[in-house]
Amino acid sequence: MYRTHNNGALRAEHINETVTLAGWVQKSRDKGFMIWVDLRDRYGITQLIFDEERTPKAVMDLAKTMGREFVIQVTGKVIERESKNPKMPTGDVELLVEKLEILNEAKTPPFTIEDATDGGEDLRMKYRYLDIRRNPVKEKLIFRHKVSIAVRNYLSEQGFIEVETPYLIKSTPEGARDFVVPSRMNEGQFYALPQSPQTFKQLLMVGGMDKYFQIVKCFRDEDLRADRQPEFTQIDCEMAFVEQEDILNIFEGLTKHLLKEVVGFEIESFPRMTYDEAMAKYGNDKPDIRFGMEFGELNAVAQHKDFKVFNSAELVVGIAVPGGASYTRKEIDKLIDWVKRPQVGALGMVYVKCNEDGSFKSSVDKFYDQEDLAKWAEATGAQPGDLICVLSGETSKTRAQLSALRMELATQLGLRKSDEFAPLWVVDFPLLEWDEETERYHAMHHPFTSPKPGQMELLDTKPGEVKANAYDLVLNGNEIGGGSIRIHDKEIQSKMFDYLGFTKEEAQAQFGFLMDAFQYGAPPHGGLAFGLDRLVAILGGQETIRDFIAFPKNNAGRDVMIDAPATIDAAQLEELNLKVTL
Amino acid sequence: MYRTHNNGALRAEHINETVTLAGWVQKSRDKGFMIWVDLRDRYGITQLIFDEERTPKAVMDLAKTMGREFVIQVTGKVIERESKNPKMPTGDVELLVEKLEILNEAKTPPFTIEDATDGGEDLRMKYRYLDIRRNPVKEKLIFRHKVSIAVRNYLSEQGFIEVETPYLIKSTPEGARDFVVPSRMNEGQFYALPQSPQTFKQLLMVGGMDKYFQIVKCFRDEDLRADRQPEFTQIDCEMAFVEQEDILNIFEGLTKHLLKEVVGFEIESFPRMTYDEAMAKYGNDKPDIRFGMEFGELNAVAQHKDFKVFNSAELVVGIAVPGGASYTRKEIDKLIDWVKRPQVGALGMVYVKCNEDGSFKSSVDKFYDQEDLAKWAEATGAQPGDLICVLSGETSKTRAQLSALRMELATQLGLRKSDEFAPLWVVDFPLLEWDEETERYHAMHHPFTSPKPGQMELLDTKPGEVKANAYDLVLNGNEIGGGSIRIHDKEIQSKMFDYLGFTKEEAQAQFGFLMDAFQYGAPPHGGLAFGLDRLVAILGGQETIRDFIAFPKNNAGRDVMIDAPATIDAAQLEELNLKVTL
Repeated sequence: MYRTHNNGALRAEHINETVTLAGWVQKSRDKGFMIWVDLRDRYGITQLIFDEERTPKAVMDLAKTMGREFVIQVTGKVIERESKNPKMPTGDVELLVEKLEILNEAKTPPFTIEDATDGGEDLRMKYRYLDIRRNPVKEKLIFRHKVSIAVRNYLSEQGFIEVETPYLIKSTPEGARDFVVPSRMNEGQFYALPQSPQTFKQLLMVGGMDKYFQIVKCFRDEDLRADRQPEFTQIDCEMAFVEQEDILNIFEGLTKHLLKEVVGFEIESFPRMTYDEAMAKYGNDKPDIRFGMEFGELNAVAQHKDFKVFNSAELVVGIAVPGGASYTRKEIDKLIDWVKRPQVGALGMVYVKCNEDGSFKSSVDKFYDQEDLAKWAEATGAQPGDLICVLSGETSKTRAQLSALRMELATQLGLRKSDEFAPLWVVDFPLLEWDEETERYHAMHHPFTSPKPGQMELLDTKPGEVKANAYDLVLNGNEIGGGSIRIHDKEIQSKMFDYLGFTKEEAQAQFGFLMDAFQYGAPPHGGLAFGLDRLVAILGGQETIRDFIAFPKNNAGRDVMIDAPATIDAAQLEELNLKVTL
Repeated sequence: MYRTHNNGALRAEHINETVTLAGWVQKSRDKGFMIWVDLRDRYGITQLIFDEERTPKAVMDLAKTMGREFVIQVTGKVIERESKNPKMPTGDVELLVEKLEILNEAKTPPFTIEDATDGGEDLRMKYRYLDIRRNPVKEKLIFRHKVSIAVRNYLSEQGFIEVETPYLIKSTPEGARDFVVPSRMNEGQFYALPQSPQTFKQLLMVGGMDKYFQIVKCFRDEDLRADRQPEFTQIDCEMAFVEQEDILNIFEGLTKHLLKEVVGFEIESFPRMTYDEAMAKYGNDKPDIRFGMEFGELNAVAQHKDFKVFNSAELVVGIAVPGGASYTRKEIDKLIDWVKRPQVGALGMVYVKCNEDGSFKSSVDKFYDQEDLAKWAEATGAQPGDLICVLSGETSKTRAQLSALRMELATQLGLRKSDEFAPLWVVDFPLLEWDEETERYHAMHHPFTSPKPGQMELLDTKPGEVKANAYDLVLNGNEIGGGSIRIHDKEIQSKMFDYLGFTKEEAQAQFGFLMDAFQYGAPPHGGLAFGLDRLVAILGGQETIRDFIAFPKNNAGRDVMIDAPATIDAAQLEELNLKVTL
């Protein structure tokens, strides 16, 4: 036994006990005749004291050789601390060291192992094992474990069975790019790593598994944007004999359970909103509803005056910024500059100050009188003291711009509180979305998503208007997950592939096994998948996922710690019948 | 809501309630005026009754069109069954159907969906989704889930943190062959899929995670033997500041917990045995100790008589077969033939019948008298009525042969009971094993395993005798898992790589990150990994793992259901800068 207690365990009740501890030297203060050391492990910090009057000389001498991050084992008596530290759980006591063994020495770490480190991102990634010693990273990994096990136990109690689906599957050109794995035994052939276990979970439904889940790694070979990883983790779920409502209820339950169990937050309301409503009210299919600032459409009250910019616009839309009437001209100009940045792309911004006395002062007073502006205030819900910001133009672009402004302002105003959680379901997503590049419709969710009952016929006439039995879970302005009711009829699935531009042969080669399966008694089914990395980050009050992943990759898809990927042996390539063509 | 109850739920207390059920038509009996249907789902079977006097005619007519495995939804009243079936949980009641909807039709399945199916292995694999509908397969997958969640909760309660380690890592030529994954973004480079998270879990210990576990997929591109899969699942664990004894205790606890929780079996003893002892007593490093038949070494009592075969042998060793004295000459000849098969390879077998009257009759009576044979009986523990089987020759081969015979006889005698569990620890494994092919020593466990204290020096003089801090968990004659105390000192690790034939450059290129990490304060640590597939199969009383895996691959590494691996697009290859050289 290397230790009798961990470094978070000792309390006043242990005083006079002889104990053995082990851990890392967090820091030491050497006063010559006395040395204090903070000894750290996963569980906490205990203060050690080496005192030349009470500690053997050899131990005292050895103690003086220790540096930061040395791994040591000490035995001694727990004593009462002279100056107690009420901020530390072990702050009432310290260990008077009698025996010391240095278990391993340590070079000076390349950055300080403290809550606030001096290490830059790159250095921290290269020495990730040292970064994990820091509380902020360590706690995030422990938090992730808590979320995972809470998910598993909740779903298990609800009758879900975790089934492991295979990682070596078949490449399908649909969707994102696959990572492939050359097969040595099947010459010239490749497996693919799953982008999701989608078809397997549907086959489990055909197989009568009824309620399936899995916390599972998925893979996408995409050009990495910030905060995207080539491998990521999904909470993947599927149920048979369900309608959309059943699924929403089950996973609303899971979300509430997690919030309560893991972050101690009780949800008051869990709204549902159609996609169309979310776009109209927030300009966004994943609105952050921790705060208001809902869109007010102003076409009816702002058009057909003499202001040509608005008259020629497809949409005129505004939001009320709480307390914004007090903004200086300079502050407002900064906002206007902000929306005109290329990343946002607005051509300009009209504003209205709603003065405390009930009067209005706008940037378009030339065209609109007080009565007009009062109608704007009504439409945007602006109160005296608020500022109305108005954008105009093509509908989808303008919505996106105003949505960006809404989020920016909320951040500036401190309305996006990390300890508040506002989930909602966005439902009735469009089945298809237009792809500018290929000039055709793509499945918005995936090709297995079922259109709303009776809408299949619209496919040929108004494909963009077909709504799907598809839904997203949104939390604090982030899409946490999404899913759909699936097609379970071979004919409809086959038609859908047709519609999405698959030839019969392609559909059969890639998804024949699924359509075959549908012929042997497929039940109605549906499900969803949550992104675990994102969910954990949001529950942990953070926006970026990287520190919730033990060993993340950088934006070039590299693990800089182990230096992967790397070239492989010529012999390995030969066995795989492959040649690198560079 | 597709159903108010599942098909395992209805009891006498539900009589007169109107309920809705959904599921698959297991079978139907059509008597013309009355039709009985067994409706099946994951939870059970409920009998439906369609009665022309009480069921609407349209429903009756529709019911007549249903075939096996049709998916239907029915509403009706729960009634008392005339002839109750006490074997079925729902056997007191049946559902008098008022409404019927056929949710999906089904072609005749390629094999019967019954506990005992007429489907051969290949057909069952191709239509795995139908095979999963059968109770024996479905129950095994549910059982696997129960084991997994029990493992997770137990380890979690013991303070272990599940940390997900990456799947896209770096290829290392050491050990089995890696599956590799070409990187598109890092041209000409490859990731490898992990054979185990070994180095990552060690880095987590360096990172202070203290207690880590993960249930994780691992990959090995090996020529597949029966009951081996290219992807398999490990329960992977590691602890810091531990000695071997700590690890054995923790995982002895886990094993006991699983046996109690999952199969209701309480362990009486959990022995530990050194590798040397296991080899001497059972000729095997994974002995099945559900039964005795321990080896008795006979060199001292059987050599130096006139029997040359024994005199020239390195080892003469026997086992007592309970009740074997009654075997006929023919039965004994069959045993002799069995040990002489090429798979076993013995040149012959000597036997001694221990008669009930205390006398002996052997196949070597020419050379040994009754007094000699009494000593053999003593050495093998043979009782009157037993048969002693004796093999001789080179030690390790003879042990392997007698071990095979012991297992065969135990199977014949019904001593390997699937509802009995006898775990044990085999400890003190050799550090190295001699590889005939490459004519050098290899790490028996892996290159990170620590030699026993003070044995490092033996490496240069008697490498084969160096024992490691390595241990295996054995259950019913199967190796369930194994592990070791690791090296945590850079110098020793470096020497070990030297010894195993790595050049400095190779060691640095492949494991430099680990040795670098050891310089920054690596704690003493160790761990183990259990094979989940095997563990679940053994706990489930089975010897083969395949049915405990939802979608297994065949012996050629193919998923015959989805037909993977497969060729990929020329465009995909080009993006990866690869060419197939076939």
